[in-house]
This record gives sequence, structure tokens and C-alpha cells, in this order.
Amino acid sequence: MAWFRKLTQTQVSALKKQHHHHHINHPFSLLSYLSHSHYTTEAPPTQYAGLGPTRPEEKPRVVVLGTGWAGCRFMKGIDTNIYDVVCVSPRNHMVFTPLLASTCVGTLEFRSVAEPIGRIQPAISREPGSYFFLSNCTAIDIDNHMVHCQTVTDGVDTLDPWKFKISYDKLVIALGAQPSTFGIHGVEEHATFLREVYHAQEIRRKLLLNLMLSDMPGISEEEKRRLLHCVVVGGGPTGVEFSGELSDFITKDVHERYSHVKDYIRVTLIEANDILSSFDDRLRQYATKQLTKSGVQLVRGIVKDVKSQKLILNDGTEVPYGLLVWSTGVGPSSLVNSLTIPKSPGGRIGVDEWLRVPSVQDVFSIGDCSGFLESTGKPTLPALAQVAERQGKYLAILLNKIGEAGGGHANSSNGMELGQPFVYRHLGSMATIGRYKALVDLRQNKDSKGLSLAGFTSWFIWRSAYLTRVISWRNRFYVAINWLTTMVFGRDISRI
Amino acid sequence: MAWFRKLTQTQVSALKKQHHHHHINHPFSLLSYLSHSHYTTEAPPTQYAGLGPTRPEEKPRVVVLGTGWAGCRFMKGIDTNIYDVVCVSPRNHMVFTPLLASTCVGTLEFRSVAEPIGRIQPAISREPGSYFFLSNCTAIDIDNHMVHCQTVTDGVDTLDPWKFKISYDKLVIALGAQPSTFGIHGVEEHATFLREVYHAQEIRRKLLLNLMLSDMPGISEEEKRRLLHCVVVGGGPTGVEFSGELSDFITKDVHERYSHVKDYIRVTLIEANDILSSFDDRLRQYATKQLTKSGVQLVRGIVKDVKSQKLILNDGTEVPYGLLVWSTGVGPSSLVNSLTIPKSPGGRIGVDEWLRVPSVQDVFSIGDCSGFLESTGKPTLPALAQVAERQGKYLAILLNKIGEAGGGHANSSNGMELGQPFVYRHLGSMATIGRYKALVDLRQNKDSKGLSLAGFTSWFIWRSAYLTRVISWRNRFYVAINWLTTMVFGRDISRI
Repeated sequence: MAWFRKLTQTQVSALKKQHHHHHINHPFSLLSYLSHSHYTTEAPPTQYAGLGPTRPEEKPRVVVLGTGWAGCRFMKGIDTNIYDVVCVSPRNHMVFTPLLASTCVGTLEFRSVAEPIGRIQPAISREPGSYFFLSNCTAIDIDNHMVHCQTVTDGVDTLDPWKFKISYDKLVIALGAQPSTFGIHGVEEHATFLREVYHAQEIRRKLLLNLMLSDMPGISEEEKRRLLHCVVVGGGPTGVEFSGELSDFITKDVHERYSHVKDYIRVTLIEANDILSSFDDRLRQYATKQLTKSGVQLVRGIVKDVKSQKLILNDGTEVPYGLLVWSTGVGPSSLVNSLTIPKSPGGRIGVDEWLRVPSVQDVFSIGDCSGFLESTGKPTLPALAQVAERQGKYLAILLNKIGEAGGGHANSSNGMELGQPFVYRHLGSMATIGRYKALVDLRQNKDSKGLSLAGFTSWFIWRSAYLTRVISWRNRFYVAINWLTTMVFGRDISRI
Repeated sequence: MAWFRKLTQTQVSALKKQHHHHHINHPFSLLSYLSHSHYTTEAPPTQYAGLGPTRPEEKPRVVVLGTGWAGCRFMKGIDTNIYDVVCVSPRNHMVFTPLLASTCVGTLEFRSVAEPIGRIQPAISREPGSYFFLSNCTAIDIDNHMVHCQTVTDGVDTLDPWKFKISYDKLVIALGAQPSTFGIHGVEEHATFLREVYHAQEIRRKLLLNLMLSDMPGISEEEKRRLLHCVVVGGGPTGVEFSGELSDFITKDVHERYSHVKDYIRVTLIEANDILSSFDDRLRQYATKQLTKSGVQLVRGIVKDVKSQKLILNDGTEVPYGLLVWSTGVGPSSLVNSLTIPKSPGGRIGVDEWLRVPSVQDVFSIGDCSGFLESTGKPTLPALAQVAERQGKYLAILLNKIGEAGGGHANSSNGMELGQPFVYRHLGSMATIGRYKALVDLRQNKDSKGLSLAGFTSWFIWRSAYLTRVISWRNRFYVAINWLTTMVFGRDISRI
């Protein structure tokens, strides 16, 4: 240690000398003294000049807004030899949404369903002109081929919010949608959505907290029932899958590990219409039967008001709850609402058959935030991962083709032959309903004939299908390991 | 679905009728109607009368405060045929602290190092008289054999803080210690400790946020260096292991996945004295060399003041930082400070050679919160997992013996033969320093001779030792899987 002590002494006395003679401005003087190579005082070149418009001899720049199914599938497919890719999103990973419900009760780990963008498109962290910016897009300046952004800091005080602009040659808007509250008072404040990993984390923490609180000495019976009443509003696939996972968790894990309170916990699913309305009649009946059998109460009702410990239905019934999960579908986000371009029915960004925003140059939109313009004569596609993924794939191929033909730069692809328009072909729907049971509906649409399955076989198909679709090998491996350990050891219940 | 629709209609009209005729008080009327068995209106027996003093014909009750190494090892060893166990702690899991530093950079998953109490002592969730309460102990009423508690709700509005009392026959105080800030201004506010899983989560989130923020267009060079300057204060095993993990992460993962900013990220370890002062001289020199080689800057200094983006050393040097981790040792918690019983040197709860608090009846104390009274002539033991674990094991055996001899109830073990007092035998110290290198010091104490190892072999011993000591098979399995995937796929960088 002698050398170290000596070095430190030398450095400190040198510093004191400096300190005496003149004011030190450079905050790293101590550290740069200690290791000469680390901190240079000379001003380096401004690295981000490149975020102004690209020059003709440079690669054209595609700016992607959003990291959902659509944006990520697009980035995976885009040819980074042709384009630089710049992605702007408030989260640095894609969420494998169909498996999100399983993470709330500990069947899967949170990280098993999150895929970092850098693993989907490695160029974003390696190529000199490609970037990922953890930011929100605050405005789109269509006239000047430019987006305005602001950093996301989550209340961490390391940096004040930072604003910047990025010029694009091509813009891909894949901002997704946001949960609909239908203007019902109290939803935002008291309910939890189930669309992001942090939502699943919040649900898990609340559920485990309520399980433990309900065991406290002196808590009344009524309060205990309230705390352990899990209410799910919305009977679509997310609501149904979450209810199923929850009743699985109660049957298998709560009964064993929280045996003091096991008779108090209940799951209620509130839906205004039929549950799983997009599925085959027979499957819906099967799901209803299975959910009821595993203890999920199905209530038909419309929520009128949400308060901190109870919700009120249209007919005046009060439903006390300890946990409230809201999953009644999605609508356009505020940025999409603010855009003054023609919209599709439902307020989505209007696109033509090639997924272009036809009124402006070089702007495309895919996923839940976009919909066909009425002029195309095509129906608005459902807000499904399947649709978003197919659109992302299609658009990557289209833009690669445009780029190869020399139309990658701004305003340079006019009149180009675009080839086949985007056509959506539904591959079927799947939903798990707990207890090794699932539904698989392989019909092309509601009215056509086709295969529909329910039960263990389709549960097996469901698992296999997702296992092959979880994007990276790492996460495939982890999901399989998670499922295995849940079977062998039960679910994890540490509240961290 | 017909039956369901019909049931709902019947129920709703029945409810409306009720609604007309009289005021509904019971909030679950709708639900109890739907499923008769779920909610009963009759008042059930008050389940928690048992938390008053136990009757002579009942099992005596051991109350354990804390779920660290000491408390958990005690609970694992206590014979639940003799005692009911009631545990009070603000967290429902034990943290496997020696591996916590690895979770900050994604080498291990958070849950791999957390062990739920119910897995350590299953009786706590199954036996009718045993409980876990997610609460803080607010006061100890030694005269009345009673502890006062208050629930932990973490700002979740599901239940107002709830106060309750628990009578004990035997009390085991294993509250641990809290990080020392030495009264330095700004530490609590701006630095992160590394003792709980949520600390590791916070460090991880900050680190990944800073990595992404530093890549924003227009951020100055100086600001970029500040954001990516990770400062660790305290050169004990935790500080050194964290620095090592961090430099591993930088070398292997940041260089590949954040290549835009890789030349800006630095780790500085600030320590007032020698690093790893409890280790063999040779090992310390080895650690110093290895850490320096892997890019960790060792700075000898004393921190005077901490501000939001820089800290100030005693000699006036300003050190800007993006992430500040504080690990300078521990001191007594405020509850321990408030107790008016004789203390050991350092302000810990004073115990005799049998780990009893000798001035009062039926109270024991183990782990970091306790220390031998000066009258025992024994030195205060270091605040190590090893000490806490050994004390928990010893005390469980002692209390089992007392219980078997009929002295389990309050005030009934006076004059009983206690057998061998507690003797601590140091098994050696281990620390990892990154890059497949670790230190193993198997000497009994600083001045004795013995084996000390450094390098890959000891890293291998380090991993193997921890793998066999991670408590449950589930977590052993997960830790092994985590290490394997980190080797194969690299660390996970999704910021969730």
C-alpha cells in the first residue's frame, strides 16, 4: 500500500498548493491528477452535430418513436447498413405483454418479460450514428422534418429535464395507446393498469402488502375481506388472464403460505358485456365455467365511480376492494390527440395501405396509435400485439426497399413504386385462464369457421407458442426456468 | 352464458328492491348474494385474543424482532413444537447480503438474494399461533412483557397505519443496525446505502438512467463525466465488492452496449484509512492492485459534505458524481438508542455470555444490535453476517433447551442451568474484487497466522461457498442460473 499512500499524499499536497495559489474551477482536478488519462481539459468535438439534418453523403436517419411491439419489430427488421436508427422512448425495453399478467403473482420474473432495446437492435448502442434516447417526444414538427424531445428522469435529481430536437429523414410513429378510463372519476388515482412492468410490480407489491396487512391483530372481519378483495374491471384477454393467474396463486400458494387469511381472499371480474367478446361462443362459455370453478366471481356491471377503498356501480352497488386492476381497453395518447393530421375512426393517426401518413412527407405510423383512413375502405385493426408486430415487420421491409432504391433521405422518395400494400391476416387468439387451461381460437375472424380449442392441450400450445416467441434466447431460457421453478417450488412471495 | 346473465339480472333486481326498502349497511350484500358461502354476516370470534399473555396450558410465545441473519437463523432453529413464533419486521424476507452488490449491475436477479420468511420457518404461515407481522416495533415494554408495533404501508392507501401490542414469553431483539452517516450533511438525502434489496434496485435504476442520460444530444463533456462518475464511500468488503462488480460491468457490458459513452464512465472508491482493513496485508495489496488495474480509482480522503451533484472532501476538493453509494459501516438504530437498558461499548444492547439482556427477564438480543457487556470481559464482535448467524443458531438451541425443561413461559426460567456460553470462532473472511478474482482470509483474527488466498482459486471458493449457503434450494438454483446466464449472455440492462 506504500505506493498508494505516497501517491495520495503527493496528490493532496499538490492540490493544497494549487488551492493556495489560485481558484480551482475544474471540478475534476483531483481526479485528473490521480489518473492522467481519464479526464482531459481540452474541449472535444461536439458529438451530436449529427442530429441536425443528415447530409446527402451520410446515411439517412430513421427516427422511431416508441418501443412497443410495433416499434421494436420495425427496429429489428431495419437494415442498419442503409439507415442510422434513432429511437425515442420513455422505456429502454420492450415488454412481452402477453406474459405480463403472470409476473404479478410471481409465476414469471419481471425481467423475463422485458427485452432491452439493445438486444433487439444492437446497432443502437454500437453504431456511431444510431442512438436510443430515454425521452418523451413532446411535439412533431412535420414541416421541418423534426421531432422535439425531453428526457425522462423519474424524479431522480441527477439531471434536470433536458430538451432537444432530432431531424429525421423518415419518421416512424409507434407510440402505442393509453388505457381508457372513459372519464370515470378516480380510476387514474386508485386503480392500477396492467401495461408496463412497473404496473405489474405495483400490483404485486399491493397484493402482498394486503395479504400481510389482513393478518394483523385486531383487523375487523369486514376490513379483512375488503383488503383481500381483488377486483378486475374489464373482461378482455388481459383481465381474464390476470384473474386466472390470481385464482391460481390463491389456490396453490396463498392456501399454503398465508393459511391464516386464505378464506378471505376473493377475485371479482367486472365486465359490462360478455367476457372475451372476440372469442368463439363455445370458448367463452368454457372460460366462464372454468373461471367460476376456480373461484373468480363474474359480475356484469358498469363502474360509475372509483373511491380509495371502494368502487360504485351504475346501479348504486358499492364494491369494497383492496386491489383494483383496470383493463378496459385503450385509446389514443395525448400526443396523438394533439397532432393536426387526418385521423382514422377512433382518433388514431390515419394511414394509407402502405402505413404512410399520406398528407405529409416521410412519416409512417404503425401499431395501436394508427388506423386506416376511411378513404382506404379498410376497417380499423384491433389493438393487438399481433397487428403491431406484423406492421413493424412490413414497414421495415418497405423502408429497406425505399432506402436501397436511393430514397432514404428526406423528400427523396416521391413517386417511388412501393409494391404490395399491407394486408392483415389474423392468425388466431389465445388466452390462458389459469389451472393449466387456455383458449386457442384459430378462426380468421368472428364470423368465419375454423379451429377453436380449450383445455390442457391449448394451454400447452399457449405456453409453447409464447416460449418460441419470447424474443431473445436469454429470455426464452428464463421463462422456461421460471415456469419450471414455479411448478417445483411454488411462486416466490418475497415483497421486494 | 345464459345462467350468468340470468343470475346477474336476478341479483341486480333483488338488490334494487332492497335498496328501495331499507338502507344497505353491509357493503358486500351484492357479492354475498352472488356466492352465498363467501361472506358471512355473523360476527366471527376475535381471532387475535391470543396476542395477550399466553395461558399456562398454551404454548409459550417467542417474539422475534427483525428478519436479518440473526433473526432468521434463530427462527430456522427454534422448535415450533415447543414455541409459537411471532415475527415483527418491516420486510417479509431475509436479504442474502453478501451477494447484494452483484444485483446492482444485473449479475444476479434481486429475488435470487431474497428469501421469504415463510420458506425459512414455514410454521409462521401455517401454525395457528404463529404469525409474521409486516410492522415496525415502536417500543418495548420490558416491565409488562409486551412490544408495541405499527404496520408498514409504504404510502399505499389501502389501510391506515395500524397499531397493536404483542405479549411475549421470550423476546429476541435482532433489529440489526443502521448505516452510519457520522452526522455528515446530505448523506441521507443524496447517497444510496447498500443494505436492502430496494437499495440495490435504486442503485441499478440510477446507474442505467445516468448511462442513458449521458448519451443525450447536447450534454456537455463535463456533465457527461459527472453523470457517469460512480463514487463509493467506504472501503470495507461491501464498498470493495460493489466497486469490483461495477468495474466488471463497465468492462464487459458498458463497453459493448453503451459504446457511445464508454470512455466517460469511472469508478472512484473513497476511504479514510486502508481498504479492507480486516484482511491480511498481502491480500489488501493484491486487492489494491487488482482494483486499480480494472480502473477503480482509490482515493484516500474524508468526506465533509454531500450536495446533490458533488461531494466535498475535508481538504476542500470537490468531487462531482452521478451516483453515490455510501457504505462506511453501521451504528445502532433509533429504537436501540431509545432503550434504557445497559449498553455495550458502541451503544449496542448489552448482553451476557448467554446473549441475555441480564437486567431484565426473558429478553435476549443477537446480531448487529447487540454486544457483550463490559462486565463479561469479552470484546464487541464485528457486525458480520457470520456473527449474527452463529448467535441465532446458538440462541435457538438455548431457548429450545429452556422450553423443553419447562421454562418457556414468562418468568419461569429463573435459576435454570443454561450450559455452555456463546463463544465466537471466526471462520475467515471473503470478498470478491471483480474479474473472477476474490480474497479468502482464513485466519482467526488479524494477528494470528493462517491461510490467505487471492485470485481465481479463491474466487471459485467464494462462489462455491455462497452457493452452498444461499438458504433455499430454489435460490441456490436461481443464483447458479443467474451466474450461468451472465457468463453466456452478459448482464441484463433493461431498466424496469
